[in-house]
Amino acid sequence: MAKIRSKKNSSKKEVIIEKASKLFLEKGFGAASMRDLAEHVGVEAASLYNHIQSKSEILQAICFKVANDFISHMEAVQSSPEPALKKLELIIRFHIRMMMEQFEFVYISDHEWRHLPEPYLSNFLNQRRNYRRSLSDLIARGIERNEMKDLDPHVAVLTILSAISGIESWHRSRKSVSRETLENNMVKYLIGGLKK
Amino acid sequence: MAKIRSKKNSSKKEVIIEKASKLFLEKGFGAASMRDLAEHVGVEAASLYNHIQSKSEILQAICFKVANDFISHMEAVQSSPEPALKKLELIIRFHIRMMMEQFEFVYISDHEWRHLPEPYLSNFLNQRRNYRRSLSDLIARGIERNEMKDLDPHVAVLTILSAISGIESWHRSRKSVSRETLENNMVKYLIGGLKK
Repeated sequence: MAKIRSKKNSSKKEVIIEKASKLFLEKGFGAASMRDLAEHVGVEAASLYNHIQSKSEILQAICFKVANDFISHMEAVQSSPEPALKKLELIIRFHIRMMMEQFEFVYISDHEWRHLPEPYLSNFLNQRRNYRRSLSDLIARGIERNEMKDLDPHVAVLTILSAISGIESWHRSRKSVSRETLENNMVKYLIGGLKK
Repeated sequence: MAKIRSKKNSSKKEVIIEKASKLFLEKGFGAASMRDLAEHVGVEAASLYNHIQSKSEILQAICFKVANDFISHMEAVQSSPEPALKKLELIIRFHIRMMMEQFEFVYISDHEWRHLPEPYLSNFLNQRRNYRRSLSDLIARGIERNEMKDLDPHVAVLTILSAISGIESWHRSRKSVSRETLENNMVKYLIGGLKK
């Protein structure tokens, strides 16, 4: 069988994780085996173990990569001088793009985190809770400053994040709506619905 | 073991389907067996088969019950003289209440329909497509009549239905937000975001 080929700038491990994300999306993390993964990558299982020890290691890499991306983006936005509504728009747009461009990673991180072993599980959930709290604080601030309608911030966060995760069904559909139309209209709906 | 007890006004079959819905939610349709179900209901498997032939029969009953509820409600709303925006509000409110009051049924119909056997599967998907098309037509009409903002109707439908299905995570949370707060704020957000 072939050796594991790496794309320019990606390590072999990254190539394996990339392929694993497609496999987990297709079969579910629980049902996919290391043997399936070796087949998917196109190498012997023994060769796979030179780069990666377990499915769990891959899941950790995916979940924490996604968490880092979202957290770093939010920190950058938070430290900008923009008004709260504009900050929220930037964050919503980033979520939508992540759902489009890194769909497998985001999907797995959203749906398979339950399989993370401790202490990663608690750590991941903690980061998730903090992230949602920051979003909800941002909305509370927007309401205080009269930039946003007086809506319960927790319900607003639930509405926003759930709406965006619905892009899953766009991926599985015939995509009669273009990426741009989807992004711009969802932003318009979710920001317009909050704007005072 | 106990006999299958029926609530007032529910047949034994209905009681079984009710219990099955909780089991399917907990274990997933694929993983739950008729033996699990018998245990859950508190009867011998043989006794269960007097009322119901297979898991599939239960899934069909659940999916088509939910589809009928949504379709009947939409037909009643459509035939009312209300403006499009008010019609949409009634439909959104109904979806939110279904997610709260018939959560197991709606969840199973949303997540497990793939396990329906033919011809039920095609029929179910057909009804689903038609339902979404009616919603999207309603929004297109609202835009034409200048009651709603100029948003892509397909993206609006995706946003609305995905946001509402996020109530799943409310069920699994500590419910720091009350039902009423959730319903009223989500309606306010989703209708306010469309209103011109």
